[in-house]
Amino acid sequence: MIKEIEGGVTAAKGYKASGVICSVKPANKTKKDVALIVSDVPAACGAVFTLNKVPGAHVTVDKEQLAAGAPMRAFGGNSGNANACTGARGLADARAMCAAAAAAAGVKPAEVLCASTGVIGQFMPMDRVEAGIAAAGKALSAAGGRDAAEAIMTTDTVRKECAVTAEVAGVKVTVGGMAKGSGMIQPNMATMLSFVTTDAAIEPALLKRAVKAAADLSFNRLSVDGDTSTNDTAAVLANGLAGNKPLKSEADGGYADFLAALTFVMTRLAKMMAADGEGATKFVEIKVTGAADEAAAVKAARAIANSPLVKTALHGGDANWGRIIAAVGYSGIEFDPEKTEISFGPVPVLRKGYNIEFSEEDAARELAKKEIYVNVSLNGGAGEATFWTCDLSKEYITINGDYRS
Amino acid sequence: MIKEIEGGVTAAKGYKASGVICSVKPANKTKKDVALIVSDVPAACGAVFTLNKVPGAHVTVDKEQLAAGAPMRAFGGNSGNANACTGARGLADARAMCAAAAAAAGVKPAEVLCASTGVIGQFMPMDRVEAGIAAAGKALSAAGGRDAAEAIMTTDTVRKECAVTAEVAGVKVTVGGMAKGSGMIQPNMATMLSFVTTDAAIEPALLKRAVKAAADLSFNRLSVDGDTSTNDTAAVLANGLAGNKPLKSEADGGYADFLAALTFVMTRLAKMMAADGEGATKFVEIKVTGAADEAAAVKAARAIANSPLVKTALHGGDANWGRIIAAVGYSGIEFDPEKTEISFGPVPVLRKGYNIEFSEEDAARELAKKEIYVNVSLNGGAGEATFWTCDLSKEYITINGDYRS
Repeated sequence: MIKEIEGGVTAAKGYKASGVICSVKPANKTKKDVALIVSDVPAACGAVFTLNKVPGAHVTVDKEQLAAGAPMRAFGGNSGNANACTGARGLADARAMCAAAAAAAGVKPAEVLCASTGVIGQFMPMDRVEAGIAAAGKALSAAGGRDAAEAIMTTDTVRKECAVTAEVAGVKVTVGGMAKGSGMIQPNMATMLSFVTTDAAIEPALLKRAVKAAADLSFNRLSVDGDTSTNDTAAVLANGLAGNKPLKSEADGGYADFLAALTFVMTRLAKMMAADGEGATKFVEIKVTGAADEAAAVKAARAIANSPLVKTALHGGDANWGRIIAAVGYSGIEFDPEKTEISFGPVPVLRKGYNIEFSEEDAARELAKKEIYVNVSLNGGAGEATFWTCDLSKEYITINGDYRS
Repeated sequence: MIKEIEGGVTAAKGYKASGVICSVKPANKTKKDVALIVSDVPAACGAVFTLNKVPGAHVTVDKEQLAAGAPMRAFGGNSGNANACTGARGLADARAMCAAAAAAAGVKPAEVLCASTGVIGQFMPMDRVEAGIAAAGKALSAAGGRDAAEAIMTTDTVRKECAVTAEVAGVKVTVGGMAKGSGMIQPNMATMLSFVTTDAAIEPALLKRAVKAAADLSFNRLSVDGDTSTNDTAAVLANGLAGNKPLKSEADGGYADFLAALTFVMTRLAKMMAADGEGATKFVEIKVTGAADEAAAVKAARAIANSPLVKTALHGGDANWGRIIAAVGYSGIEFDPEKTEISFGPVPVLRKGYNIEFSEEDAARELAKKEIYVNVSLNGGAGEATFWTCDLSKEYITINGDYRS
């Protein structure tokens, strides 16, 4: 039984967090831009990172930290600068961030992961960042999850956090997380900064597999603009303070419940990212059914979600289903167009056999809503997948025409 | 020696064309929307079509026509309706168009190819289309290439035609063509309607290979929005009236010159389509060098060309090269980011070893131009490719938010 509760990364037992202003971008004097999350006790850690061949410096450093296999205690993060394409100096800066976060949290440097998001190709202002991390250390509190979530926002317009409780092998555990999204969002293995904490007890190796499985069903089903970021990172801390018997294998009683809770939190965060995509005015859920297999369904759904023509039509409330089937047509999957059916919510717009008569009025009513549900039935197999995106508006162009300044 | 001349599909010997208004879209009373091109004598024909799994009706019918292997005499085309996703009725309508064009041109129905472009998922208004084709037959003239080029425009803002002369085995031949572009443009094997005519003499089998080779270097290096249309078609007629000794194999003297002329015309048309992409304010040429091979260079260039973040930054004149290297990073190719160099025209913005110092002023000057040249040197091999696209503006959103009406 998964139950949603208030809060984010400090919802589970034994976590403190904070978010402060340190002016990573010199002009920023009002937005929190450094976050810190600390577990009271050593925690298992699982994380997935971008597959972009140009990883941000923190991705390289975090992988080194995790390779040691030690438990983790803290996450440090900043917005305003991605510390990507910054070479050896960038790596040194990322390591210095870990050291600063460790000092601020009162833990060892080997127990810290760091993450950065923002502009690519600029050096980190380490004086201000280190001062900010120190200040974040002083501000840590069990109510600080909200501040931390605000500190990793870039062009996000709303804070993204959520938390649930679930019963794992008879014990109540809590899973809470935060994320930032908005632009350069088509996560490949993870998403642009998501941190999740839980008090569940779970072995590190199993947690790692759980994070991968949950990310595949959540962040990897999300696209705002089809651009896979250099800095995508989703990391989970599990400190065991809930007191359940530690989960060791997929067969353990309670693992399925834990995975469901983790997937719930990550999916909720992914949907929040879609709804708050850069310039988005509508949340769009695309469900493809009847594909040959799940991989084909994901491919078709991703092609629809990434089509600028589909996204502009949804923005304009135009029931132009031809663009949807055209996107499936070039997605690379095998299917029979004549068997394909498309509906917006409950309103069919294309029926089998190219039956193209539909009610423009009913379709327009569905497309006028803030949440649009696109259903594509290929009627050719059992494969299905759900994917999340948003519409494409003029505001996206405005936001991205002059992002660096 | 390729020499550019005035004109389009009626530049070569023995071709007549026309374009008339027939109100394919009922509200259209002023824009030519039916085109006809006729060769005075039977001509070899080569064509490439979309790989979209949802081909427009004319794609299916044209392939049947070509399979017979007979020479061709005429092309008929319309804008305003794509005749795609229209099932059996759509196929019958496409065949009726061929029959009408044959009657109007005074040739056999088996000697005609037809092509449609416009809205997907609506039936063709065959009464008006057949009347239009008959009128186009009466309007045929050796100066009609321009009218035909105007008749296939949809959201295009400028007519796209060009012509060249070249010496093939000592004989002067002419190649002229027209195309329409604008949106749903990422041709895969061809582009949304391009017709080319030549008076060169060439065997059909060799012409077919020449068209494929030229399309791979021209239309298949073009993207406006990453959407591959259902109706992409590039067809070439070669009527032999130039009088050269017919070309039979790639080894024949003159074939290389013919292919160069054909590639020149198709490339020029592809660039015109990029410059006139929906909402485009800038033409963008992306050159990737130093890739492992040509295929890798194309992949990287295509990822850059399709990145909404790159395209909005170029629109805004923001020298955000981080988005360019991020796109290469997720393109799927192997490369070393530390060896990568990026420049806008002659202005370097990223040098080897993540040397990220550059002149914002010089870069801004390049990005303020109407034509932007993005050079990406991977310094990892001999593979290179050039790709064409445009920026992404608010006007694209306006055009595509309500396209069907």
